[in-house]
Amino acid sequence: MIPRYSRPEMVAIWSPETKFKIWYQIEAHACDAMADLGVIPRENADAVWKAKDVEFDVARIDEIEAVTKHDVIAFLTHLAEHVGSEEARFVHQGMTSSDVLDTCFNVQLVQASDILIADMEGLLAALKRRAIEHKDTVRVGRSHGIHAEPTTMGLTFARFYAEMDRNLARLKVARDEIATGAISGAVGTFANIDPRVEEHVCAQLGLNPEPISTQVIPRDRHAAFFATLGVVASSIENVATEIRHMQRTEVLEGAEFFSMGQKGSSAMPHKKNPVLTENLTGLARIVRMAVVPAMENVTLWHERDISHSSVERNIGPDSTITLDFALARLTSVVDKMLIFPDNMLDNMNKFPGLVMSQRVLLALTQAGVSREDAYTMVQRNALKVWEFRTDFREELLADEDVVTALGVDGINEKFDMGYHTKHVDTIFKRVFG
Amino acid sequence: MIPRYSRPEMVAIWSPETKFKIWYQIEAHACDAMADLGVIPRENADAVWKAKDVEFDVARIDEIEAVTKHDVIAFLTHLAEHVGSEEARFVHQGMTSSDVLDTCFNVQLVQASDILIADMEGLLAALKRRAIEHKDTVRVGRSHGIHAEPTTMGLTFARFYAEMDRNLARLKVARDEIATGAISGAVGTFANIDPRVEEHVCAQLGLNPEPISTQVIPRDRHAAFFATLGVVASSIENVATEIRHMQRTEVLEGAEFFSMGQKGSSAMPHKKNPVLTENLTGLARIVRMAVVPAMENVTLWHERDISHSSVERNIGPDSTITLDFALARLTSVVDKMLIFPDNMLDNMNKFPGLVMSQRVLLALTQAGVSREDAYTMVQRNALKVWEFRTDFREELLADEDVVTALGVDGINEKFDMGYHTKHVDTIFKRVFG
Amino acid sequence: MIPRYSRPEMVAIWSPETKFKIWYQIEAHACDAMADLGVIPRENADAVWKAKDVEFDVARIDEIEAVTKHDVIAFLTHLAEHVGSEEARFVHQGMTSSDVLDTCFNVQLVQASDILIADMEGLLAALKRRAIEHKDTVRVGRSHGIHAEPTTMGLTFARFYAEMDRNLARLKVARDEIATGAISGAVGTFANIDPRVEEHVCAQLGLNPEPISTQVIPRDRHAAFFATLGVVASSIENVATEIRHMQRTEVLEGAEFFSMGQKGSSAMPHKKNPVLTENLTGLARIVRMAVVPAMENVTLWHERDISHSSVERNIGPDSTITLDFALARLTSVVDKMLIFPDNMLDNMNKFPGLVMSQRVLLALTQAGVSREDAYTMVQRNALKVWEFRTDFREELLADEDVVTALGVDGINEKFDMGYHTKHVDTIFKRVFG
Amino acid sequence: MIPRYSRPEMVAIWSPETKFKIWYQIEAHACDAMADLGVIPRENADAVWKAKDVEFDVARIDEIEAVTKHDVIAFLTHLAEHVGSEEARFVHQGMTSSDVLDTCFNVQLVQASDILIADMEGLLAALKRRAIEHKDTVRVGRSHGIHAEPTTMGLTFARFYAEMDRNLARLKVARDEIATGAISGAVGTFANIDPRVEEHVCAQLGLNPEPISTQVIPRDRHAAFFATLGVVASSIENVATEIRHMQRTEVLEGAEFFSMGQKGSSAMPHKKNPVLTENLTGLARIVRMAVVPAMENVTLWHERDISHSSVERNIGPDSTITLDFALARLTSVVDKMLIFPDNMLDNMNKFPGLVMSQRVLLALTQAGVSREDAYTMVQRNALKVWEFRTDFREELLADEDVVTALGVDGINEKFDMGYHTKHVDTIFKRVFG
Repeated sequence: MIPRYSRPEMVAIWSPETKFKIWYQIEAHACDAMADLGVIPRENADAVWKAKDVEFDVARIDEIEAVTKHDVIAFLTHLAEHVGSEEARFVHQGMTSSDVLDTCFNVQLVQASDILIADMEGLLAALKRRAIEHKDTVRVGRSHGIHAEPTTMGLTFARFYAEMDRNLARLKVARDEIATGAISGAVGTFANIDPRVEEHVCAQLGLNPEPISTQVIPRDRHAAFFATLGVVASSIENVATEIRHMQRTEVLEGAEFFSMGQKGSSAMPHKKNPVLTENLTGLARIVRMAVVPAMENVTLWHERDISHSSVERNIGPDSTITLDFALARLTSVVDKMLIFPDNMLDNMNKFPGLVMSQRVLLALTQAGVSREDAYTMVQRNALKVWEFRTDFREELLADEDVVTALGVDGINEKFDMGYHTKHVDTIFKRVFG
Repeated sequence: MIPRYSRPEMVAIWSPETKFKIWYQIEAHACDAMADLGVIPRENADAVWKAKDVEFDVARIDEIEAVTKHDVIAFLTHLAEHVGSEEARFVHQGMTSSDVLDTCFNVQLVQASDILIADMEGLLAALKRRAIEHKDTVRVGRSHGIHAEPTTMGLTFARFYAEMDRNLARLKVARDEIATGAISGAVGTFANIDPRVEEHVCAQLGLNPEPISTQVIPRDRHAAFFATLGVVASSIENVATEIRHMQRTEVLEGAEFFSMGQKGSSAMPHKKNPVLTENLTGLARIVRMAVVPAMENVTLWHERDISHSSVERNIGPDSTITLDFALARLTSVVDKMLIFPDNMLDNMNKFPGLVMSQRVLLALTQAGVSREDAYTMVQRNALKVWEFRTDFREELLADEDVVTALGVDGINEKFDMGYHTKHVDTIFKRVFG
Repeated sequence: MIPRYSRPEMVAIWSPETKFKIWYQIEAHACDAMADLGVIPRENADAVWKAKDVEFDVARIDEIEAVTKHDVIAFLTHLAEHVGSEEARFVHQGMTSSDVLDTCFNVQLVQASDILIADMEGLLAALKRRAIEHKDTVRVGRSHGIHAEPTTMGLTFARFYAEMDRNLARLKVARDEIATGAISGAVGTFANIDPRVEEHVCAQLGLNPEPISTQVIPRDRHAAFFATLGVVASSIENVATEIRHMQRTEVLEGAEFFSMGQKGSSAMPHKKNPVLTENLTGLARIVRMAVVPAMENVTLWHERDISHSSVERNIGPDSTITLDFALARLTSVVDKMLIFPDNMLDNMNKFPGLVMSQRVLLALTQAGVSREDAYTMVQRNALKVWEFRTDFREELLADEDVVTALGVDGINEKFDMGYHTKHVDTIFKRVFG
Repeated sequence: MIPRYSRPEMVAIWSPETKFKIWYQIEAHACDAMADLGVIPRENADAVWKAKDVEFDVARIDEIEAVTKHDVIAFLTHLAEHVGSEEARFVHQGMTSSDVLDTCFNVQLVQASDILIADMEGLLAALKRRAIEHKDTVRVGRSHGIHAEPTTMGLTFARFYAEMDRNLARLKVARDEIATGAISGAVGTFANIDPRVEEHVCAQLGLNPEPISTQVIPRDRHAAFFATLGVVASSIENVATEIRHMQRTEVLEGAEFFSMGQKGSSAMPHKKNPVLTENLTGLARIVRMAVVPAMENVTLWHERDISHSSVERNIGPDSTITLDFALARLTSVVDKMLIFPDNMLDNMNKFPGLVMSQRVLLALTQAGVSREDAYTMVQRNALKVWEFRTDFREELLADEDVVTALGVDGINEKFDMGYHTKHVDTIFKRVFG
């Protein structure tokens, strides 16, 4: 986790304080369930809730762990310091450390998912607003970085919206993937604890009981979770790359917002760098690099080994913190980015009218001109535009063969922008409903 | 694609013949829609269907492509050889090559998904059968490769079932991810083609229209698809690794089926290698290696570049063919694998009764013995078993302090296997309903 | 392996014919060594060489394998058909299949390396030629896609040369990594075969004996090999991306060669797509995706398991064939690419003279103007250029404060291109010697 | 970076204090060189060295950066607070931030490499000591987890030594890859700074001047560096996996050292988990996951973009810190691990003598028995051992046909362990010289 690429709310989920708080809730709810089942005395279960509002002392727990060499035992020892040794004696009964650790990890991932889902909704709102704002802002569509046919800036935002909307759905599925808990004992047989304890704890924590666990919750769930984050990150890179291209000196159709107060900006007005979206490109790689290790984690020996643990200590916080930061940064970039419609037109007209050459070619063949002849007609005029930057429409209007084939109105009509934007409404309806 | 790791039905999906057949269907349905809209003559649309049952001549198309340097044009030229030049003249009108290529790719991925889904259902059936068969076959559960507490072989199969059942659900979602088509023209604006053509073609092919496309269908869909295959592959590795462990000479609790006729087997009966599951471990890596490139493919420049194409030519066939083969191989392994219940008991009793030491420790403390004393009692008896392989229960029964604390019956009760299997029914109900 | 992205010489290395030829050489040389050691009769060793010029019949070997279920045995059976059963009876004595398979695989990788090294030398020659050709072709250097300061096209080629020269060195190291052979028996102890056989075979095949092997050659060697290919591929993507940027409609400082005969080019002269370099971007991903599986292959259980095998059947051919193709394609692109020096000047002067604003700023402070004042002076003139595209030098010359500080000559001097190119010779000397 | 998986010396390299110290050295040496060249006054260069022993105040620099929004400027401002504004006015003249940042990053990577190289030498010493100690400790070699032929524990350690020795060589190459510095200005042309400044600074810092840089040092170097760390990590996983297998309850041929004082160990003597080596398996994944992003970083737009930066802020510290920790942990595990030679013999004799069946088979055919008959003879005796765990040698000695073929001495000789260990010296000589 790199502080400069993190936000406090997500960081807090991964703090020791939060972890111990969740451990506490798992243990306390488990005691409740055991008391209800008559396995432990009700008063002992009640006593545990005395610590309900305690902020656990991380330093103290570390101190105990230094002796016991076991994190859960250290926590339980500290808990007993709050609720009393005698009162706490049934806490954790019949449970195994992984019951607490794995259930806690999933609670943290669920909380992280909720933030990511909210982030994504924020991004969608920004994309939608900009899409509507620039629905009719014409720019040239490009394939291979080369001018193709006109489109609109609104369509660009709209397709990013649609992509992120799919990512929202994926995040919700990913959240469900890891919204389970397990309190099933050393090898998952519930030998020492009633399955109803697991059911109660999960219900209280907003989780589903893991239908079948071993000592641990199966890691295919986490693999699917981190893979989803990788897809979302890749979409972020996709949007970021579009903006980076737009801000190039030669293109300059858009730019990250740059407050005029920022030093340097005014002395070298051409030197406004798309550093935020470049940064997002890198952050996408960081999120993506967790995907393969998370998949390697699926294979555990028999009822568990601990090879996955160090990986998860890394990617659990790092991927969610980085993705949260990236989504927020992208939202801000989209929200405030500058759009330069005039430059869009200038660019489209770099070779005036040439962007319509394909349409003219099509029209000629539809008008009955042979493919060969149509090519020749378009070619001889297009090359003039290419070389001398004259206007393609003017050239066509001066070409007798073309006029014969299409007529003056027919030629002019081919340069009507409405031809290209006529279905924008349809597409917007599909995307935004 | 490696022939020895492939099956014909999946390979066929990726043949040029299948590809051209799908291209044909896209073009023919598009003509139908255009005729219905009055854009092209009905008789031309009808004429295209003359080629309905044609097996397209791949060599001939390659020959044409060698001249035209364009695969779709080559196909269209060949199609015209079947339906007549004049009749074929409206085919592909207003469409762009990617409309055909991308829609076709998704049709292929949908077909591949259907096979993978059927494969997974086959695997689930095998796992379920073996789970029920060995529901009560006791074996020792292991954490860290070390004996922990008893479980059953049926629970092992059941948890693989549950994991693969999740994978079945994921495959269905993945299928939906890529079940879209697009016929939207050079930059996705429908400038030259009516959106209703896209709707018609998609409906005929069992796809949803892509709500908003550029020249291409957005690649976040494919990233999510291949990521899912990676998760499934990782689960295959998980099951394969369990079986590899079971077949180790020292463990020998199970083995890949080995027909007695196979040479070598009988002369060296100990040398039956788990080569199929080792192979599955490797195949999992092959499927998994497509995940990151598929994510890198999400970022395309503006309305498309072609960087994703070579990657997809590779991973499209390779990942689906390999995963299909792996699922089928694993199904066969599970279906026929040998289980050795006697060896399971032998292994569990390597240090007779020691696997129950934790339970005895727990019982002692529950009986009011201090944690310190309980440790001492368990320790002095456990160490004898560890060193001299005596029987733990016998040692405990001979230890006055332990008998005092737990009673003879209490001690014996701790070695009751039913304690560990009492919730197997509950778990099976959760998994199999 | 995708036929369209492959070249015959590299493909041939991975053919069954080549494989059997290498197997044969290993066996024949091993017989020689065994005869020299007196382990087998000399005449039997000599007899094996009768098959020296045989093209082994792959179909026949497959036929035998269908029965024996073992590839090496099938080959040996077929070999006996050529040299005689009796004569062949000592072939493979004391050897294990992996001795043949692993040594053969490394021979193939060495052969592949030799091609890749030659490819790289070809690429270096092309880069050097273009570097020298465009040593003084001025273009604007860009950071973040934004104009920074002038540089030259020759420097761009020269840095790609330097990068590829490092890759050449890496390829040579990678070749050494896998240039080993092992003939050490079932667990690497030479129990059934003398180590001098291994030494002889390796010497004949241009390999070093693996100092210590198990049943297999250790896979850290292959991991290092495929990782190197991944680095080379990443450099290819780097060069390809530069060219893709150069060919953008708005930039147009260079382009992949496009023969005028190619249809479409002339009718739509602006629509020349950098499809080769886009393709190279995708091919880089294909080569790179082998890196992680090759690393996962390093861990084998005890003296070997076979999990690595299926991975290597895939990545062995695929990575080398793809990289060979990519290097050749890039060489051709570099060799023939079009460079547009006029457009380079046009681009640099998009905001006339503004690219020198940083140098003017520096000069002002060096001339004793306070940082604040210098900023103000540059800013007020730069903004005019930014908004009205006037000439920065003219503006400065008309600004009394600037003239006072720098003098007319001083101002003019700041626009001297030689300032930026004065060390090009030094750099070329460093790179090319 | 996870504190529990880190060691202070490596962590210190990545502290802000170290970073600023290196920045300072770069700037001070650059001033020296500029003074020598007569570009700046000697006394100003000398003045900078007043700060030679200063511990820079990170909080103060952060405070300044909060205003200037630029880390290098913040540092320079703080530096001026130490050496005086006037004295410091020529610091950084003609340089660009990346000159400092990139050169510093490489200094850090070189320092990190030096630690990793020392770590590796420590690991090699431990492996060598254990190899020699157990040179003749016989254990069964296993392929596919199945008993094959005898080998020795010393050979196992020796092959890990050889593998790590290759990794040592790779680490040294990797160190050279990134031991370069660049002080070449905004686009690498040395427009504002003399190349001799770069040469001087690099010489002082133990770096080579980067022959040709842009604004940044080319990232193929870093890709090669992190790829090497990935290979080393994979080898660590390889060794760790062997130890994990050895410690399995059923195998128990070795174990991580477990101090008798550790609680729990004595009460459940069978429950000593190989948690350190399992942890190493996970740490290997963490190191490995940096490889692909480092390769993706190679492609930068034109003379630089900043997409690589966030990735390097993560993987720079994380990969080196994790690998350092992992090497140290593995060294400790190897150094202290328990080896159980008696269990090795017990395991080898699980099916008494059966491990020699292949050798007997070979001997029979060499004695002139037909392959078919030899199989039958071995088979009928081997199956008895397999089923009834009788002794294979006894069975053979009781089999008339076998005795006829091999003689009593011939049979006994086949069970001579010296046959399998006779070349251990040769192999040790190859490995250790």
